[in-house]
Amino acid sequence: MCAAERVVKSMLKEFDEAVKKKKKDSLPEEAQPDAKALREKLSSLQIQLKDHKLPVIVLLEGWGAAGKGGLIGRTIRELDPRFYTVATKGSSAEEEKRKPFLWKYFNKIPEEGKLTFFDTGWMQETVRAVEREELNKKALKARIVSINTFERQLTDNGYLLLKVFLHVSKKEQRKRLDKLEDDKNTAWRVSIHDRWQNLHYDDCLKDFDRCMEATSTDWAPWHIIDGNNRADAACELTALLVSAIENALQNGIPQAQVEPREFPLLKSKPLRKIDPNKSIEETEYEIKLKSLQNRLGELHNKLYRKKVPVVLAYEGWDAAGKGGNIRRITGALDPRGFEVHPIASPEPHEKARHYLWRFWTRLPKDGHIAIFDRTWYGRVLVERIEGFCTETEWKRAYTEINEFEKELSDWGAVILKFWVHIDKDTQLKRFEERQNTPSKQWKITDEDWRNREKWPAYEEAVDEMLQKTSTEYAPWYVIESNDKKYARIKTLQLLVDALEKALK
Amino acid sequence: MCAAERVVKSMLKEFDEAVKKKKKDSLPEEAQPDAKALREKLSSLQIQLKDHKLPVIVLLEGWGAAGKGGLIGRTIRELDPRFYTVATKGSSAEEEKRKPFLWKYFNKIPEEGKLTFFDTGWMQETVRAVEREELNKKALKARIVSINTFERQLTDNGYLLLKVFLHVSKKEQRKRLDKLEDDKNTAWRVSIHDRWQNLHYDDCLKDFDRCMEATSTDWAPWHIIDGNNRADAACELTALLVSAIENALQNGIPQAQVEPREFPLLKSKPLRKIDPNKSIEETEYEIKLKSLQNRLGELHNKLYRKKVPVVLAYEGWDAAGKGGNIRRITGALDPRGFEVHPIASPEPHEKARHYLWRFWTRLPKDGHIAIFDRTWYGRVLVERIEGFCTETEWKRAYTEINEFEKELSDWGAVILKFWVHIDKDTQLKRFEERQNTPSKQWKITDEDWRNREKWPAYEEAVDEMLQKTSTEYAPWYVIESNDKKYARIKTLQLLVDALEKALK
Repeated sequence: MCAAERVVKSMLKEFDEAVKKKKKDSLPEEAQPDAKALREKLSSLQIQLKDHKLPVIVLLEGWGAAGKGGLIGRTIRELDPRFYTVATKGSSAEEEKRKPFLWKYFNKIPEEGKLTFFDTGWMQETVRAVEREELNKKALKARIVSINTFERQLTDNGYLLLKVFLHVSKKEQRKRLDKLEDDKNTAWRVSIHDRWQNLHYDDCLKDFDRCMEATSTDWAPWHIIDGNNRADAACELTALLVSAIENALQNGIPQAQVEPREFPLLKSKPLRKIDPNKSIEETEYEIKLKSLQNRLGELHNKLYRKKVPVVLAYEGWDAAGKGGNIRRITGALDPRGFEVHPIASPEPHEKARHYLWRFWTRLPKDGHIAIFDRTWYGRVLVERIEGFCTETEWKRAYTEINEFEKELSDWGAVILKFWVHIDKDTQLKRFEERQNTPSKQWKITDEDWRNREKWPAYEEAVDEMLQKTSTEYAPWYVIESNDKKYARIKTLQLLVDALEKALK
Repeated sequence: MCAAERVVKSMLKEFDEAVKKKKKDSLPEEAQPDAKALREKLSSLQIQLKDHKLPVIVLLEGWGAAGKGGLIGRTIRELDPRFYTVATKGSSAEEEKRKPFLWKYFNKIPEEGKLTFFDTGWMQETVRAVEREELNKKALKARIVSINTFERQLTDNGYLLLKVFLHVSKKEQRKRLDKLEDDKNTAWRVSIHDRWQNLHYDDCLKDFDRCMEATSTDWAPWHIIDGNNRADAACELTALLVSAIENALQNGIPQAQVEPREFPLLKSKPLRKIDPNKSIEETEYEIKLKSLQNRLGELHNKLYRKKVPVVLAYEGWDAAGKGGNIRRITGALDPRGFEVHPIASPEPHEKARHYLWRFWTRLPKDGHIAIFDRTWYGRVLVERIEGFCTETEWKRAYTEINEFEKELSDWGAVILKFWVHIDKDTQLKRFEERQNTPSKQWKITDEDWRNREKWPAYEEAVDEMLQKTSTEYAPWYVIESNDKKYARIKTLQLLVDALEKALK
């Protein structure tokens, strides 16, 4: 049963009742936790976050004028600015609109050992879209799946995620909006939406409730905090953070226990059953190259106009001819509409985040083509083979990658993935040629020779990758490349066909 | 005499005449350089760029529909995508408007060994602003100074900069616009501005001329390329690039021979004449802290509303109390309106660019406060002392930094710089305390002890820095911090005073 379909339980109403009850039999003041002591406790935990390389995300949502900014302000008062950031709604709304929904959030996830407070985020954006009727039922369902997947990927990859809703009553909200508007220095803080929300408080409450219920999971439950008293709220958030961090430091972040989603997998052949020895005649090559490039150029114009994003992923054996292949594609494209991303080993700030982060940040705008020369599949290839990640991690990655590509596909992206394939003899020949040609020597390194020795391990990893991640919406194509010209024509043809289909 | 005031020489008209003359006595076809050979030559130079760590910037400007995109496309055809990028007008116009003019361009400068093509850039943006009457005479003059400074800083720091204007006649432009509009797949490429430009071709020509003349410097002259024939243009650009790169590889990038600009320097005392032993009484501290923080909070609201950006730069001895000082500032601020940037040693992708790049990319939006915990002054402190840059480089940096801060100030930023000052005994006491307090041990490293041994060298460097970079628009303040509380109150007071003044 999908979370969105469950009977909606009013989390906020239940919370209100619990608060009322608690107020009746609340503790005497002296027994309540001391705000300053709590803040100092949180401050002292920071250095442990650093030592344990634990990244923490706090998503703070809530009513307009509930005091979210002030709450964060009070919570961070004793924190060292080296260890946290506050992420607010960006000012690059235009760019954000041209990227997948999750892009702006994935962009801002913290490095390990650091803390990011999201001052509203994916939940508010979703509820507002519902209110504006920009999301129909089906789209909302897909959105909820995206969010739950995003949050699960974060926690699975070691992020401590704390989701908090700051709750105030209708009356309190109106009072605060009035007060803000009375002062000309704060009047700008009251948006039309805040007023609208207060007028339609009950409907909005239902929307919040529905969204919270649908995204309250075992791995990322919601916490509701009473915002009617600012000092209490800060105390409560700090206490929540302290206990969540202490728990995570002691027990780690539990992995979500869910059945992996099913993806529409395509059948794939193991590499050993594929003969890389296909070839093309020179004249035919020249003619086809020209006509395919012309066609690709036209299609590029069209997809720019229709705002269709395209993602091309290149993997393959060293010296298989990826570079020349890519150049035959880019040669046909308007340079203002594509970008090639050569992927090497991650830099420190990249390694310190979710392994998909550096790909999320490099996504194309809609209407543009992003070509990745090596890709996120490094997780199940080089990282698997060299032991740069654990077995659990690379095994989990097949699902995570399918989810990632599904996200791109739902956004409207055309995705093609190429394994550029040669046999071992051809590789040797090309290595030796590189070695012996001064202008090509930079292309061959000791690492290439070491990788070559691991051919069988790579072959096994490639086969598993093809088998587990070739999907209808993001298929793998093995490109026979003993004859580079054949490989180029085949790739161009596949790309042109896919674009024709998508643009029909 | 300022470049903008010089009698305008029509570069484009002279060029047209030269082209006509050349056509009359042009070479026979077989003597003209071969396009493909040139492209291959350029391709083979790429690897030398990499080896010599030479970064290259090509600024391509020109008439609408002159074929800039196609020209870049043809030029890069044989290049390896790992070594170049094409920078186009961003889609985040909103964000760009909230940053200094040069921000978006500085952001996109290449790493060493790589090539960036700007498909229009700072010149077109300036000419359009003139056409729209958004820049008055004075603002245009300042803009020209900014551009010339930017380009000089690039070349001084080892960037090869090639500026090219792609020129077509009025008739040819109209023909091309008509043709583009006839095809529905390309019609979107013709903007209203293109048509407007063609109708006002002669006026626009004057604007281009004036801007080119004013920015044609010894270190970054303009090259005009005839765009009437596409193949010839590509040939010419490639030839230009090849010879510029060959020249740079052989002779290096010549430093601009110009008198450094004069800046309104403030008098500064050497550190030894400053007694860091000022103190404040506990009760007074508490009262002042509270009242200054309240006032700062109000001012923060006001500057947000008035879109005034604020840049705070913190430098100081290790253990001087920068962190706690910063926290007393941020504690008073709405966390949605500030960011603290802790600056450590640069990461590889940062080190591979102009040393100010990582600060340009971290500038605040207007209305926001950016606090730098250590700054661009690393160039004249740690980099000078540890020999991480050459003497020429750190000596040149005083001017470059003054220019950088002037740019920020002209944009409207309030800039304050704090040297947090303690004496050697106090440092020793604090080091030992950190050493002996388990929860503070992470704050003290071997490097801190090594730096301590270099106290006299640092003192000399600090004195020179204070003397050469304390300007009216970006003053240095020495903050006596043997008593951290005194230091906090002094900093807060200085900040509040500066904001009051700026917001009046």
